[in-house]
Amino acid sequence: MARIALLGGTGAEGLGLALRFGIAGEDIIIGSRQQQRAEQAAQRLRTMLRDAGAPCRVDAGDNAAAVAAADTVALSLPYEGVEPTLAQLGSALAGKLVLDVVNPLVFDRGMFRILPIAAGSAGELIQQLLPRSPVVCAFKNLSAKQLLDAPQQLRGDVLLCGDHADAKRYVVDLIRRIPVLRAVDAGAIGNAQHLESITALLMNLNRRYKTSTSVEVLSLEQLDSKS
Amino acid sequence: MARIALLGGTGAEGLGLALRFGIAGEDIIIGSRQQQRAEQAAQRLRTMLRDAGAPCRVDAGDNAAAVAAADTVALSLPYEGVEPTLAQLGSALAGKLVLDVVNPLVFDRGMFRILPIAAGSAGELIQQLLPRSPVVCAFKNLSAKQLLDAPQQLRGDVLLCGDHADAKRYVVDLIRRIPVLRAVDAGAIGNAQHLESITALLMNLNRRYKTSTSVEVLSLEQLDSKS
Repeated sequence: MARIALLGGTGAEGLGLALRFGIAGEDIIIGSRQQQRAEQAAQRLRTMLRDAGAPCRVDAGDNAAAVAAADTVALSLPYEGVEPTLAQLGSALAGKLVLDVVNPLVFDRGMFRILPIAAGSAGELIQQLLPRSPVVCAFKNLSAKQLLDAPQQLRGDVLLCGDHADAKRYVVDLIRRIPVLRAVDAGAIGNAQHLESITALLMNLNRRYKTSTSVEVLSLEQLDSKS
Repeated sequence: MARIALLGGTGAEGLGLALRFGIAGEDIIIGSRQQQRAEQAAQRLRTMLRDAGAPCRVDAGDNAAAVAAADTVALSLPYEGVEPTLAQLGSALAGKLVLDVVNPLVFDRGMFRILPIAAGSAGELIQQLLPRSPVVCAFKNLSAKQLLDAPQQLRGDVLLCGDHADAKRYVVDLIRRIPVLRAVDAGAIGNAQHLESITALLMNLNRRYKTSTSVEVLSLEQLDSKS
């Protein structure tokens, strides 16, 4: 199995993904701008994985060390962290699979909205900034709360997109190793804006109905469903 | 029950909605720029409604006559028809509920994409152009094919949004009278761009998987589900 680094792995979304990836059998590297915070998150993750009976290896490091040690790097960053982080790490990411989990959202006039991005979406911006890395957008719509605290409530489709078929195949296989979730390949990376828009919609529904929603595409029975 | 006019009611999406609204017990007025086309579509609709055992009244007229006779006006137009149509009919629509079914899509470089709109979305543009009409965005994500030809395959959530609570209540009640479909009020009209983005995503999935998809929001059990 591959080693997956999570940049922004100390936040709830990153740590929740690391937990699911670890249970799926991947070795994990928690990255952070501050090595000490990465170490604390890795220690918490080891405890959760031990409780889950998953014996994967968990390391920690600053972002550059995490990237250097990984085959796959998940960007679980706030949107405003994308450009500075990639300016620093872009060349180290060349040739590695980059998993984009970023949602460019802003809370404005009572609701979550998508920030306008000249590239069309966070996913397309990241692919433009990393021309030598295959970028796959996925996991944008899953709630950190369900990933981290309530795996029994984790359900729905993981919509993904990207322009690199081999990289998408790896991510689809990773999703298949996470119980209940179904991978839905939406096609080219131009779909990233739709995935990001769905996150904004779900977060508005979560506020309105005091719940933690996810989404399922109906009439896709030809895809391998595990539910 | 109200009388619903469908502008663009001669197209598959408009006629499919008219069929579902008629079966739900509403009287229908098919509107078109050409009265003769409206009459032909109305005749086809009467036959379908008779076959479905639904005794609602169906009239036809040019767009201005259809608006004048209706309490609720559904805009089932191509996006490029919105501004010219509303320039002509805007004052006649004052005080009437306007149901926005428009998807501002373009097929470009192999996929459906959202057209950039300064107002944020077709829904917000329509509400700006019609300040004296309560606008509700709904039914954007349902496929014309399922609405018109395959009611037994019609399933999923009807996501809706708008800034006028009374108008949304009427639309929620209308959706509840259509078998299987569930109404999901997403909140303010600023969500329209997310609904329109979902349509683009579903159309890309339809092309990729040769099917006719719809969408369901999970973990909203507190809403009245009829499925």
